[in-house]
Amino acid sequence: MIEHLRPAVRAMSGYVPGEQPRDGAFVKLNTNENPYPPSPRVFDALRDALTADRLRRYPDPTGVHFRQMAGRVLGVDPDGVLIGNGSDDILTIVTRAFVPEGGLIVSPTPSYLLYRTLADLQGARFQTVPFAADWDLPEAWPLEQAHLTFVANPNSPSGTTVGRERLQRLAAELKGPLVVDEAYADFADDNALELTKPNGRSPGVIVSRTFSKYYSLAGVRFGFAVADPAVVRELLKVKDSYNCDVLSLTAATAALEDQDYYRSLRVKILATRGRMTEALARLGFVIPPSQANFVWCRRDDRPVKPLYEELKKRCILVRYMNYEGSGDGLRITVGTDAEADRLLEELVGLV
Amino acid sequence: MIEHLRPAVRAMSGYVPGEQPRDGAFVKLNTNENPYPPSPRVFDALRDALTADRLRRYPDPTGVHFRQMAGRVLGVDPDGVLIGNGSDDILTIVTRAFVPEGGLIVSPTPSYLLYRTLADLQGARFQTVPFAADWDLPEAWPLEQAHLTFVANPNSPSGTTVGRERLQRLAAELKGPLVVDEAYADFADDNALELTKPNGRSPGVIVSRTFSKYYSLAGVRFGFAVADPAVVRELLKVKDSYNCDVLSLTAATAALEDQDYYRSLRVKILATRGRMTEALARLGFVIPPSQANFVWCRRDDRPVKPLYEELKKRCILVRYMNYEGSGDGLRITVGTDAEADRLLEELVGLV
Repeated sequence: MIEHLRPAVRAMSGYVPGEQPRDGAFVKLNTNENPYPPSPRVFDALRDALTADRLRRYPDPTGVHFRQMAGRVLGVDPDGVLIGNGSDDILTIVTRAFVPEGGLIVSPTPSYLLYRTLADLQGARFQTVPFAADWDLPEAWPLEQAHLTFVANPNSPSGTTVGRERLQRLAAELKGPLVVDEAYADFADDNALELTKPNGRSPGVIVSRTFSKYYSLAGVRFGFAVADPAVVRELLKVKDSYNCDVLSLTAATAALEDQDYYRSLRVKILATRGRMTEALARLGFVIPPSQANFVWCRRDDRPVKPLYEELKKRCILVRYMNYEGSGDGLRITVGTDAEADRLLEELVGLV
Repeated sequence: MIEHLRPAVRAMSGYVPGEQPRDGAFVKLNTNENPYPPSPRVFDALRDALTADRLRRYPDPTGVHFRQMAGRVLGVDPDGVLIGNGSDDILTIVTRAFVPEGGLIVSPTPSYLLYRTLADLQGARFQTVPFAADWDLPEAWPLEQAHLTFVANPNSPSGTTVGRERLQRLAAELKGPLVVDEAYADFADDNALELTKPNGRSPGVIVSRTFSKYYSLAGVRFGFAVADPAVVRELLKVKDSYNCDVLSLTAATAALEDQDYYRSLRVKILATRGRMTEALARLGFVIPPSQANFVWCRRDDRPVKPLYEELKKRCILVRYMNYEGSGDGLRITVGTDAEADRLLEELVGLV
């Protein structure tokens, strides 16, 4: 039957996610999970949801309670919120809605590797635009005819951000929608939510968010999009009716409600990020200013792949990434202070 | 931005799932949930899984523990098992793997309405083949060139089944894969799993299963496919890396392990099905022999839509379905005995 696969699928090597060792001995700094527990309210809400009726019945297809909570906490229109089985589901839904076979998807590079996979799966072309030297977008954007443009902001692997005005200008120049992938925006100074609101709306902007990073809920799979309600009505046709389960909806709603708890985690993570960045710089790493919960570590004096391998032998997992045209580096999650210390101790002996 | 949607998406009206009232007053017999609680082991396993590390970390992308359990319980190769966020996710993955834009998807009719939506989303054509008068497949299958053929078995809305030999012959005639959608097979006398096994394998057969019906877990969203491991390796490229969350994997694995519990529910549901079928027949409904947890109720003497509406006014929700070319009917879930009695009491006054 392999011969009957779509050629685009057959040719794919498949997206390779970060390693997820089941062995608890690893210090896991490779997939940007939050090192701290989810809010106690999440546990309470999940325990309350473990009833026969909640489990045996279908969940709410559009997540009304979550959308109302998001509306309240984020100041957006609940009808402009689309729920997703993680933000990767959101990115897939948007791709299937706007990109025909043979269409064009564009993203700055280096950035999130999944965008290319989404293009491959859709049978679309994928083209990249290199970031400027300061990790801003180039002054002139060359591919405004794209069916869909993804900008991860903060960007992965760099952790850097592009200003809101620059995104607004890009959205105005583009023919198709601009997806601002804000998986890490909760750690940043600013975000693009304002661009989705009626006052000063950029109609082509779709903001994507996840609960896997800031909200410490990678295990339950939940993300959402914020966009013009007219766009969300169309995206609802593309999403699977029951893409989000009752427990992830419950967990996400409870987490969103407990902003104070997560703000206290954010203070800790940003403090550790500052300390890690300074210490890694002292060890000779070149690190762009991060507004995310990870840092992108490169070196001018030696290859970094051996460092990744040595760290792995010592049960510290970081993400090694190698981008054609812009070279390689280690993307290291900001963990707890103890995890950062452990990493730094090992690196001192390696560089 | 609406003007930039793919024309296929813009033209869609969108799949309309069964109503999911949040009001607990309804006797809910419209979307074929199991009326009994999930296994106590499911609750135990879920409670144990509510730890900070399980929630904050990414889940296992391929669901190794679940696949090993499925291998043991179902006697299949764990490498031939693909995990899905509900079986609708499985059907989407298979569609995206095998069907190009402009391709052809075929299904018998009347059957599961989602198949047409999947074709629309993929920009593919959808053609149907009417069931024979006895709800078997027609002797000669006219559309063997399809990129993908879906046969729901037991079928919805009829509850009827097609024999394994007939499916095997169909698979041999088809050019593309045959997806045997076994959402309800756990309630039936037979299934097509044997066709996926090395001895006597039909290489094009992909069996799809769900935990939403038999396993009382519609709320957590979990399904899986069983196929040739070489096919599953390709389907893994198409599925989202983290399509299944840690709690649904936990619940499904625990449920699958407790076969005794679910066999005892099955005995009850099949007994109620028999009683409901007899009583509904006495009230003048024409009902094909069901091997699922629902019955398809039609009448020769009057339209059934007013019955659906009257029942809804009385807080009993059944599924009204109307198929072009084969008419309408009520698809009624087999609930508890008390729910069946409530339904029958109301119907006595209505027909």
